Amino acid sequence: MTEEPPFRSVAIVGLGLIGGSLALATRERWPSIRVIGVDTDAVIAHARGAGAIDRSAPRLAELSEADLIVLAAPVQQNLTLLADVPGSLPVLVTDVGSTKLAMVEAGRKLAPPARFVAGHPLGGGERGGFAYARADLFAGRPWILTPDARADAADVERLQRYVAGLGAMPATMPAAAHDEVMAFLSHLPQIVASTLMATVGDATGPDALRLAGRGLIDSTRLASSPADIWRDVCQTNAVPIVAALDQLIARLGDVRDRVATGQPVDALFDASARWRAELMKGRE
Amino acid sequence: MTEEPPFRSVAIVGLGLIGGSLALATRERWPSIRVIGVDTDAVIAHARGAGAIDRSAPRLAELSEADLIVLAAPVQQNLTLLADVPGSLPVLVTDVGSTKLAMVEAGRKLAPPARFVAGHPLGGGERGGFAYARADLFAGRPWILTPDARADAADVERLQRYVAGLGAMPATMPAAAHDEVMAFLSHLPQIVASTLMATVGDATGPDALRLAGRGLIDSTRLASSPADIWRDVCQTNAVPIVAALDQLIARLGDVRDRVATGQPVDALFDASARWRAELMKGRE
Repeated sequence: MTEEPPFRSVAIVGLGLIGGSLALATRERWPSIRVIGVDTDAVIAHARGAGAIDRSAPRLAELSEADLIVLAAPVQQNLTLLADVPGSLPVLVTDVGSTKLAMVEAGRKLAPPARFVAGHPLGGGERGGFAYARADLFAGRPWILTPDARADAADVERLQRYVAGLGAMPATMPAAAHDEVMAFLSHLPQIVASTLMATVGDATGPDALRLAGRGLIDSTRLASSPADIWRDVCQTNAVPIVAALDQLIARLGDVRDRVATGQPVDALFDASARWRAELMKGRE
Repeated sequence: MTEEPPFRSVAIVGLGLIGGSLALATRERWPSIRVIGVDTDAVIAHARGAGAIDRSAPRLAELSEADLIVLAAPVQQNLTLLADVPGSLPVLVTDVGSTKLAMVEAGRKLAPPARFVAGHPLGGGERGGFAYARADLFAGRPWILTPDARADAADVERLQRYVAGLGAMPATMPAAAHDEVMAFLSHLPQIVASTLMATVGDATGPDALRLAGRGLIDSTRLASSPADIWRDVCQTNAVPIVAALDQLIARLGDVRDRVATGQPVDALFDASARWRAELMKGRE
């Protein structure tokens, strides 16, 4: 494709699953974009060996060449990094973290000519790290931008063109709405999978786990997610996550009472089958 | 293989996913075994068309030809069916339900020469019904028998040889131990998947579900399981299921309180990642 690239030079801070995939996807779609990586020496060596980056930089302050900086570390680190962006740089900054309101609030402190527009590519994978990065990670998946009222429309359009070029489906919504819906769609399933796995493992022990079938395996696929990412998600989206957990715990308590007193639980299973069918519409 | 078949004639009551797969697997492994199906006319027609059965019978009393009767309906129906087995038949009866203690207790009332040995092929599938039945459903999966103290060792060995011939890995354990471990390995994940799906669906609505990623999809794969099967499981394994739910709810409450007060949840995620690795040992 001959379309002009949306950026000349993209710096990616954190080359894990998302940052690494972003580097690979950018390279594949627009070979002329210069990709700069910021990470530990070991990760940089890995990314350079895979042809994912042109050069590395030791810190944000040395990214004056970039016209897009992507913060792709866990959320709390992204918050710290955002505060470190020199306001003198005429650069657009975005992030790819799972919670948005805290980032948008921190972004308001960024001084022009630097600007911030928060983002969240949905999807991800079972495991983190550059080793699992792949150029098609974003293909066909939503990439939500949560610009605040002060964001420049041209910046938002440029980012949308960039992520669409990587195969994603760009969308925008307010940061608070994003965080509330993600508490249910993403954060609650993660916490439930991890809590279920820990409860079952502790109760049955390793030998009994040999008897587990596909049900437990599917239900706990998320349980190997990196702890550091989820610690930050819980800390930066506490109120919506607590509200979602309260709803789930209340329902589990109701099921528990029905089972304990021999009342039928058909209504739950019927409702869940209906929602599952709704969830899978157009996917299978 | 020239080995003599363990039974001459196997009657299967209920040709759903498990019963239908049992018919297909028996036919494939030992074409000389006569397979008799008991189910509704529509299911019988489907099974006959698929070559899964030799003939059908309208009720248990007309199964005098069979030397093995397999009860493959939901558990409460199996309990009723077991009480209807004529004690005058010199037949071995087994079942394939997910809970075992209630069946074993009911089986004690069976009068010789009829005998009962309870069983549970682990695994199953996401969806029920003959349409999803397949001859290799049991391949490489445990098939647990829970004979009580009065069971004839020759009956147990014959059943073990039968299920091993179908590709399963036979094992024995006491019925109460089976039900307690399955409350964690199978029944808890099922209830959690269904409750999670219903909670998320009701909270977000159908449009937001379009934004859900692989995490929610994997975590709720069980949520389309048939309600009638799980109603019976909950009713016949209430005490272990309530105990498992109490453990999970207590842990979720702890996570909720930690998130609400900004305390780290790393210990949970680290423990769950360790158990997940243990669960997947030798499977990938």
